[in-house]
Amino acid sequence: MSIYLDNAATTQLDSNVLDAMLPYMKDHFGNPSSIHSLGRKTRSAIERARKKIANILNCSTAEIFFTSGGTESNNCVLINAVQTLGVNKIITSKIEHHCILHTIEHLAEQYDLTVEYVNIDNDGNIDFEHLSSLCKNAKFKTIVSLMAANNEIGNLLDMDAVSEICNNNSCYFHSDTVQTIGHYNIDLQKTKIHSIVGSAHKFHGPKGVGFMYINNDISFKPLLYGGGQERNMRAGTENLYGIVGLASAIEIAYQNLESDKQYISHLKQYFAQAILNSFPLVKINGNKNENSLYTVLNLNFSAYPKSALLLLNLDVAGICASGGSACSSGADAGSHVLKAIDENNDKGNSIRFSFSKFNTQSELDFVVEKLKELMLSKEAVV
Amino acid sequence: MSIYLDNAATTQLDSNVLDAMLPYMKDHFGNPSSIHSLGRKTRSAIERARKKIANILNCSTAEIFFTSGGTESNNCVLINAVQTLGVNKIITSKIEHHCILHTIEHLAEQYDLTVEYVNIDNDGNIDFEHLSSLCKNAKFKTIVSLMAANNEIGNLLDMDAVSEICNNNSCYFHSDTVQTIGHYNIDLQKTKIHSIVGSAHKFHGPKGVGFMYINNDISFKPLLYGGGQERNMRAGTENLYGIVGLASAIEIAYQNLESDKQYISHLKQYFAQAILNSFPLVKINGNKNENSLYTVLNLNFSAYPKSALLLLNLDVAGICASGGSACSSGADAGSHVLKAIDENNDKGNSIRFSFSKFNTQSELDFVVEKLKELMLSKEAVV
Repeated sequence: MSIYLDNAATTQLDSNVLDAMLPYMKDHFGNPSSIHSLGRKTRSAIERARKKIANILNCSTAEIFFTSGGTESNNCVLINAVQTLGVNKIITSKIEHHCILHTIEHLAEQYDLTVEYVNIDNDGNIDFEHLSSLCKNAKFKTIVSLMAANNEIGNLLDMDAVSEICNNNSCYFHSDTVQTIGHYNIDLQKTKIHSIVGSAHKFHGPKGVGFMYINNDISFKPLLYGGGQERNMRAGTENLYGIVGLASAIEIAYQNLESDKQYISHLKQYFAQAILNSFPLVKINGNKNENSLYTVLNLNFSAYPKSALLLLNLDVAGICASGGSACSSGADAGSHVLKAIDENNDKGNSIRFSFSKFNTQSELDFVVEKLKELMLSKEAVV
Repeated sequence: MSIYLDNAATTQLDSNVLDAMLPYMKDHFGNPSSIHSLGRKTRSAIERARKKIANILNCSTAEIFFTSGGTESNNCVLINAVQTLGVNKIITSKIEHHCILHTIEHLAEQYDLTVEYVNIDNDGNIDFEHLSSLCKNAKFKTIVSLMAANNEIGNLLDMDAVSEICNNNSCYFHSDTVQTIGHYNIDLQKTKIHSIVGSAHKFHGPKGVGFMYINNDISFKPLLYGGGQERNMRAGTENLYGIVGLASAIEIAYQNLESDKQYISHLKQYFAQAILNSFPLVKINGNKNENSLYTVLNLNFSAYPKSALLLLNLDVAGICASGGSACSSGADAGSHVLKAIDENNDKGNSIRFSFSKFNTQSELDFVVEKLKELMLSKEAVV
């Protein structure tokens, strides 16, 4: 028996999504680029998928491009910003995902590029005045790359505010929306953003597939060359079932958005309260208020002496949580996010619990009891 | 009812491969980078998949990297050849897949690069003396990129001969092996090649996943930056079920290689003979002998006046074949391969029939009868 509280790392595939994918894994297998009936069948499935996503985001189908996931999408946007749009300054933050930060570092090695990091406070919130001042220098062609929600601490960005600052200063605005797509409404006609990205496995869709939204006002070049797939923007035979699954997952997510949001928000509040009742010295990393993902709760247990091997002990008890981003788990370098908001924070023992519609209150009760057993009982394992 | 004879474009997923994938779509969904039990479970599935592939190709697991498919793999190799290995000359042929040719064109726009095309004869065979002479110029740091088998006409390359020429002239040798992996044995300890690539959906595996073999003697940089996946060589959450499916498909392919090869070879010979019996003026594009993929038969029907809309009429009759590479189908530019081997050839009406283990002799009988009905009967549709 496992209790899975690592939904910011990846989510369980929804069985309805799998059901949507299976006909394309069994019967409809034509190459979407083939012009015969089997090809036309899968081509139209891909275009229906594109239409579903465009409808939900309120954009044109011509602005949606399928990729292998969030990382490829974010790489493609940043590389194009520099190579195609001629950007020579990138403004970002130190708490972005590594697929933003490492790509920028890589670009900065190759190009004459100014990279500036907007100030953040100890809760991980962007300093908008500083962002404004960074955007003002008209010497540069600038892109602002800020994530819609932080994957480790859950902080939500005021997208409209950033959009306005970027617009006022003629900066491009890219947002890594991997943690919010499927969880929050976004209306691309209301909020002007040049590019956003999504990854299906973050909202109960399949792994290995994602998309980019690229506003029609800008044009990009492909990262991968070859066949003319994705209107010459992304070569390679399409991940057919992945794309069908992505569209099914996003459709289900937005059909049930309000009820899922309410359910999961309640779980998060319930869990936070239960933890704080038993462990009053626990600190919440990131925003404590509603400006935080309802799916993520990052807790610092370092006030408790027996917290050192907490994650390991939870794992032994069948409870899956994480110390930060899954991508960095193997690296053992601590969390760059927690370090960026508080230099001493990453030395503590912080655990990210992240929730989904498949979690239950009784699972959380079990986790709280287990935490008490591990840290408060006399026989606590160290 | 469809008769599917477009297996060089993509193949039907083997139901045994789907069965291998399903547990990872239903139960084992952890992020392979997560350190908890669910993550370790999927991590070990990925490493088992890598081991299976390495065993079959007779290489080290450290030489196998998972990607989103053949196109990404070929792009990654060529970009690294120039950017990381410092190659300033690429020798290739005009009949390579577009993911080779277009990537080279793109690189040639950005870098000071000499690109040379080896001569080919009217059957599409490489002129080895010319290749040797092209390789001899020691002024350049050179990579030779030649496909193991042509996807349109089926011609097989003598990999050992190319490997020897490359070795003798200190050239790197990359081979696009997308059409031979899963269909022919390859022993990477016997044949020295610096890099090869595979795409699962060409041998009854899933779409959207492939791999690169990169010989340990050379080191590459990632195309995509982010998390430390694939030993820092390919960022992004792994396409877990894709990778599991790829390994299952390659395992099944090599377990049954000889019997499948015999069965499909027989189908191809039977079909070719039946066609030539009824249509003696049909020409086979590419090699007529055994130096051709047993899965591919490319036929030129242009001697028959009613061949103009043949592909369309076959499609109406439920027969799926193709005019060339699926990737180029939409482009309507004719086949660059047929044009390269004979300038007038692409004006004719050529059809690629490509076979799999799922085809039957009676399907082929039906196709021959339909072709006779379409082209030889008095009521033939034009």
